Amino acid sequence: MALERGPQPFTRGEYEARWTTLKATMSERGVQTICTTDGKSMTYLSGYIGSSGYLPQMVILDLSWSEPKLVLRKQDVPLGIYTTQIARDGIIGYPETLVGNPEKDGHDFVLDMLEDLGPRNGLLGLEEAILDRAAHRKYEDRLGAASLADVSGVIIHQRLIKSDAEVALMRDAARIADAGVLAAVSATRPGRRECEIGGDVVQALAYGLPDVDTIAISVPNISSGPRIGTAHYNWYLGTVEQGMQVNFELIGLRHHYSASIMRTISLGQPPDRLRRLHDGVLEGLEAGLSTVRPGVTCADVANAYQRALNRHGFSKDSRCGYSIGMGLEPSASLQPSDRTVLKPNMTFHMMLGTWVEEDFGVTLSESFRVTDSGVEVFGKSERKLFIV
Amino acid sequence: MALERGPQPFTRGEYEARWTTLKATMSERGVQTICTTDGKSMTYLSGYIGSSGYLPQMVILDLSWSEPKLVLRKQDVPLGIYTTQIARDGIIGYPETLVGNPEKDGHDFVLDMLEDLGPRNGLLGLEEAILDRAAHRKYEDRLGAASLADVSGVIIHQRLIKSDAEVALMRDAARIADAGVLAAVSATRPGRRECEIGGDVVQALAYGLPDVDTIAISVPNISSGPRIGTAHYNWYLGTVEQGMQVNFELIGLRHHYSASIMRTISLGQPPDRLRRLHDGVLEGLEAGLSTVRPGVTCADVANAYQRALNRHGFSKDSRCGYSIGMGLEPSASLQPSDRTVLKPNMTFHMMLGTWVEEDFGVTLSESFRVTDSGVEVFGKSERKLFIV
Repeated sequence: MALERGPQPFTRGEYEARWTTLKATMSERGVQTICTTDGKSMTYLSGYIGSSGYLPQMVILDLSWSEPKLVLRKQDVPLGIYTTQIARDGIIGYPETLVGNPEKDGHDFVLDMLEDLGPRNGLLGLEEAILDRAAHRKYEDRLGAASLADVSGVIIHQRLIKSDAEVALMRDAARIADAGVLAAVSATRPGRRECEIGGDVVQALAYGLPDVDTIAISVPNISSGPRIGTAHYNWYLGTVEQGMQVNFELIGLRHHYSASIMRTISLGQPPDRLRRLHDGVLEGLEAGLSTVRPGVTCADVANAYQRALNRHGFSKDSRCGYSIGMGLEPSASLQPSDRTVLKPNMTFHMMLGTWVEEDFGVTLSESFRVTDSGVEVFGKSERKLFIV
Repeated sequence: MALERGPQPFTRGEYEARWTTLKATMSERGVQTICTTDGKSMTYLSGYIGSSGYLPQMVILDLSWSEPKLVLRKQDVPLGIYTTQIARDGIIGYPETLVGNPEKDGHDFVLDMLEDLGPRNGLLGLEEAILDRAAHRKYEDRLGAASLADVSGVIIHQRLIKSDAEVALMRDAARIADAGVLAAVSATRPGRRECEIGGDVVQALAYGLPDVDTIAISVPNISSGPRIGTAHYNWYLGTVEQGMQVNFELIGLRHHYSASIMRTISLGQPPDRLRRLHDGVLEGLEAGLSTVRPGVTCADVANAYQRALNRHGFSKDSRCGYSIGMGLEPSASLQPSDRTVLKPNMTFHMMLGTWVEEDFGVTLSESFRVTDSGVEVFGKSERKLFIV
């Protein structure tokens, strides 16, 4: 039987505004048709949430179309119907025989489709920072390099300023992240395995809130013992014990919109070096947040952090945060070299994982929105070194 | 203080065998130096488990080196020291100022590094099916296209046949996936939200087993209600109710090695169409598994499935499975067009998500290993339509 459109986070008007803005940029750049294979930009332009990104799939928008087309493997068309605003005949499934086929794949299908549309009045925009070389070569070979434009960063930069509807989802995401912090605090006890603490936290992040369902989670990063100077993995072997420190990076998700939060938990009274570093990071976080308002730059926020931290005898050589929306966005960074001017409804993770030695660091952070006159911090978790 | 190497899943000998095999292929192809940015191939060659794949990071192996080098952002070097077999001076951190920097990134750093090594006696191998166009262009511009070789698929194909040590991890992963099935069966009750079922399952997948810690999870796919013809997302809004069907795809992970399993759960007695389709898929699964032995092809297994399913009046137009190891591997597929000959210690997910209408499908699957004379099915979960 035919599947109908399901419940979705945004009105059609929200997407129409996104398409209009994108078309304006395309026109300025002489781009007639744009293709994005970036999963999050696909979600942004269509609502599609599928995770088959290891195969060719994309959203295509042409200046002459009233809405984009969504190209997926045939198996994913029902999910396209259910989760997007795209008309049924704009959700195009390519044959399953193109999956796991070394001769021909979904890009060849898209090229046939583009050829059937006839000559274009402008360039075809592809994201060279995302599209793999082998796929890009197919477009070059069939269409000629001169007919292609690199539109890397165009959609990512459009995503930098959020709508009020997006901000509302991020507030929900932050409430979910706060529930994750509570779960982390109650899960962290001597003798528990890191993977059990991880299990309790992912359960909480999935449960969401009594009034807020989740549709996905982001798996947290948890480190303890000798690993508290390391980052960027979920958790590791072994148990936490009295006297240890555990660093957490948690992300709450609401319809793929995210809010991140980091906290550090000490099992028992913290050693002096932990307390001193945490004091510095906390003062830096507050200094950075108090800087935020429209008109200041990303660099100003980062410098405020660094100055406060330096007063405590520490420094951080990595950036102090980045734009978020559906997770980390590679558009603006809170770092001294980034002169991006803050505007209302930009949203950031002020990410103060401050790993100062190979085997020592502290995690503390907040996600925030730039308001008309200052800052809205999304999370409500206690801003402190937790002691359990 | 200096961090020491942590506990790891493989001996150094396991990695040395991988490096030797890869060097042999490189020599055959005239490749002097190979770079992989594929996260799983990086883990395969070094043990590294970090998740900063949105930034340039890679494993580089040169024919003249006794072991690879690992290039990471500086912040990730401690994790490299802890989780890999690479010598400390072979773990190279590039400056944090190259992160979020539109002018220059980690690839520019690697190009400087390669130049410092002096002239090469052979080609530089890059994976064009993985490396983005913008990054690939940097190598072309600095080194010249003629000095580059496309080595897409080389490491992936080397990963096709597992060592006994890898198989042992996959057996553990299957036990974890089985624990996930039990959690799914006990979590699926009328009135529970999909996200709560998801929460209980991810908790179980994270907990692992009393004797087996996890270090990560793969988030499962769960669908119910109108969505049982859809695939490839985690879960959605709303509750399950008496009379509904819930489709599950679960993955157990042990040190990033995976085993997948799909099962379908009916809340109450299943309607006739569900029972008929499930009977066909179950018979097809058993027909396919009984075909597996060295010397038969991927196509033979897929055809055995299709024939049995057809006898029940259904068909599946997507592939019946794919090679697994660290998740799905884009090397061999169980489908009629794939003539790959099965060999001992190849491992597959016989993936029988059989979505026959937009709003109807069944999930059932097993992960297996090709043995010297037949098949070892990894999972021990009951192979049936679960009724709760």
